[in-house]
Amino acid sequence: MKKIVIAADSFKGSVSSLEVADAAEAAILKNYPNCTVLKIPMADGGEGTVDALLATSVGKEISCKVGGPMGHPVHAVYGILADEKTAVMEMASACGLTLVPEGERNPLRSSTYGLGELIKDALARGCETFLIGIGGSATNDAGTGMLQALGFKFLDSKGQELPLGGEILGEILSIDQSAAIPAFLAATFTIACDVDNPCTGPRGAAHVYARQKGADDQAIERLEEGMKNFVDVVKKTRGIDINTIPGSGAAGGLGGGFMAFANASLKPGAQMILEALNFQHIIKDADLVITGEGKLDQQTSMRKAPITVLRAAQQQNIPVIAIAGGIQDILMLNSLGFLAVLPIIPYPVSMQRAMEHEFTIDNITRTLDQLFRTLKYFNTSQS
Amino acid sequence: MKKIVIAADSFKGSVSSLEVADAAEAAILKNYPNCTVLKIPMADGGEGTVDALLATSVGKEISCKVGGPMGHPVHAVYGILADEKTAVMEMASACGLTLVPEGERNPLRSSTYGLGELIKDALARGCETFLIGIGGSATNDAGTGMLQALGFKFLDSKGQELPLGGEILGEILSIDQSAAIPAFLAATFTIACDVDNPCTGPRGAAHVYARQKGADDQAIERLEEGMKNFVDVVKKTRGIDINTIPGSGAAGGLGGGFMAFANASLKPGAQMILEALNFQHIIKDADLVITGEGKLDQQTSMRKAPITVLRAAQQQNIPVIAIAGGIQDILMLNSLGFLAVLPIIPYPVSMQRAMEHEFTIDNITRTLDQLFRTLKYFNTSQS
Repeated sequence: MKKIVIAADSFKGSVSSLEVADAAEAAILKNYPNCTVLKIPMADGGEGTVDALLATSVGKEISCKVGGPMGHPVHAVYGILADEKTAVMEMASACGLTLVPEGERNPLRSSTYGLGELIKDALARGCETFLIGIGGSATNDAGTGMLQALGFKFLDSKGQELPLGGEILGEILSIDQSAAIPAFLAATFTIACDVDNPCTGPRGAAHVYARQKGADDQAIERLEEGMKNFVDVVKKTRGIDINTIPGSGAAGGLGGGFMAFANASLKPGAQMILEALNFQHIIKDADLVITGEGKLDQQTSMRKAPITVLRAAQQQNIPVIAIAGGIQDILMLNSLGFLAVLPIIPYPVSMQRAMEHEFTIDNITRTLDQLFRTLKYFNTSQS
Repeated sequence: MKKIVIAADSFKGSVSSLEVADAAEAAILKNYPNCTVLKIPMADGGEGTVDALLATSVGKEISCKVGGPMGHPVHAVYGILADEKTAVMEMASACGLTLVPEGERNPLRSSTYGLGELIKDALARGCETFLIGIGGSATNDAGTGMLQALGFKFLDSKGQELPLGGEILGEILSIDQSAAIPAFLAATFTIACDVDNPCTGPRGAAHVYARQKGADDQAIERLEEGMKNFVDVVKKTRGIDINTIPGSGAAGGLGGGFMAFANASLKPGAQMILEALNFQHIIKDADLVITGEGKLDQQTSMRKAPITVLRAAQQQNIPVIAIAGGIQDILMLNSLGFLAVLPIIPYPVSMQRAMEHEFTIDNITRTLDQLFRTLKYFNTSQS
């Protein structure tokens, strides 16, 4: 083993992506002290995306006071990578559901304005490329708030400029982008999106996600009708039917808002991160790639970090071993291409115990240590 | 991988030793279809010992009607190995605690007479060597019942022959072995014994084991006093202080009875089995030995099958990998010499679920399959 790349997601609720990598590295170096170990923290476009990208870059973290989802100011954070042209953001930092106390959650009122302010800040610092994770939003405004922060005006039937919030969607008759910031229109956006929901309909933003953001039946219906109107207005004024784009309904239609008004593409989060990191270059000549995630199974993992890492490594015929706290469908995962899939639990335990921080770190190191001990023995004794 | 030996104990309450071996074999042959796999079912001298020894021999099973622990007839079973000279017995088959309904358990009355009858039967068939597991007994008679079945007479102060049962121990003044079966005196006994309790004292047979066999405080005291008398009589008449022999208190003093009156040695069960199987010959030129047990940890495993298998394989520098349903102290087990120690649980589960039969079989196969997939890949690609 001369070179091993570790590219695991966090074990959510237990250990961070970087801690997984550290634990795996310990097992490798114990058995192969001269091995080059590259630790590439992964994320799926949700929480941890900025940290993951900054961890492998000598970029910087920017703290920025913006309007939160309900208008109250919040301190949001984003990253600028070492190229000084690429901004990395998590929309939840500015407009996340966890920023709003439970009783005050209301997607008729909440807006993505704060994300727009973050983008404006980054544009002012010279950023031209944006990587944006959009999980965990409190909003259902189709990104109108973000666009408003960047100079767009949404007008009602009387030509009046509409305020912020999901409730305006049904009132929009026209869109004035004459004052939109030119740098925004010139910039390139990659949006990390792991769902394929459209803007409207039974699988649309309002019906699937608005209730968990605080909407009741009546509000959901109003948001749905509003989103239909927004889709129509976009189709008429921009010539794009965003409702046919898988993922346009993500984050309360923010995906659709980006697709309609920015030079944007939606990508699975893990793929966005691998491309941003130039993962193909990183893994060149590696003997092995180690990936992982808290839970791994065939059903839920198809767009997540481990499979994305696998697909990338397969392009260079590099074997991939996955570790996880809990694994199902292991033979199926083997047939997808994982050389080995290793659960880490040493004895029967509750889910709570299984997720304890130190226990998980020990389990990761111990599981891989047992493997590398064996590999080392047989490679040394038999080759 | 040209030759692999599987020598695992049962996962108690879940899968038999042979099922463990079958499950491991499936994983091996899936990856190394031309590998010679030798399946050596193990046991620790308790339940499964006869099956384990018969499984690797073309021996035969003998069914024999004998007196049970409380005198009621039971059908006991023992084995004669292919050499037709070696008998393999579990004393629990003739005098086990599970043969007595809970309310009737009484070590003042129970006896090892049935075991003596089994031995007599085997002697009559020409057996000269005995391998006897003594776990799970209902008795506390120091083996006097067994000896009575083989012609020994225990006499009281009036020279009267005493009946059966633990209660006679305090009455014994002398022992008449003039009518003992000569073949018994000429035979060799190896007694599988994994405890080191003496006959008497706070760690003796009565104080440690009699309560679980149905004795109350008064009965325990009577058995303790009786055992002291028996030890004294043996010392005076045979010149042996059996109380100084570790394990003489095993199975209600049966260990001591054998040591006093037979050509016997006490050995850890797993070691007895390995020697009986000529394990050193079996593992010659093996690339790997796989062992295992339901639970594995440094504390409780020192005399059990996996460690015994490890010590044997180390004599030929053959690596040993252990599997188990639950494992603690893995680094310590590595330092004892296990190349790898692999727990098999794929995700957090209850103990009950962990012990389910099919689940355990799948987990064994899957765990080893992941290992052999990896070994095969790296041996093929890098050597």
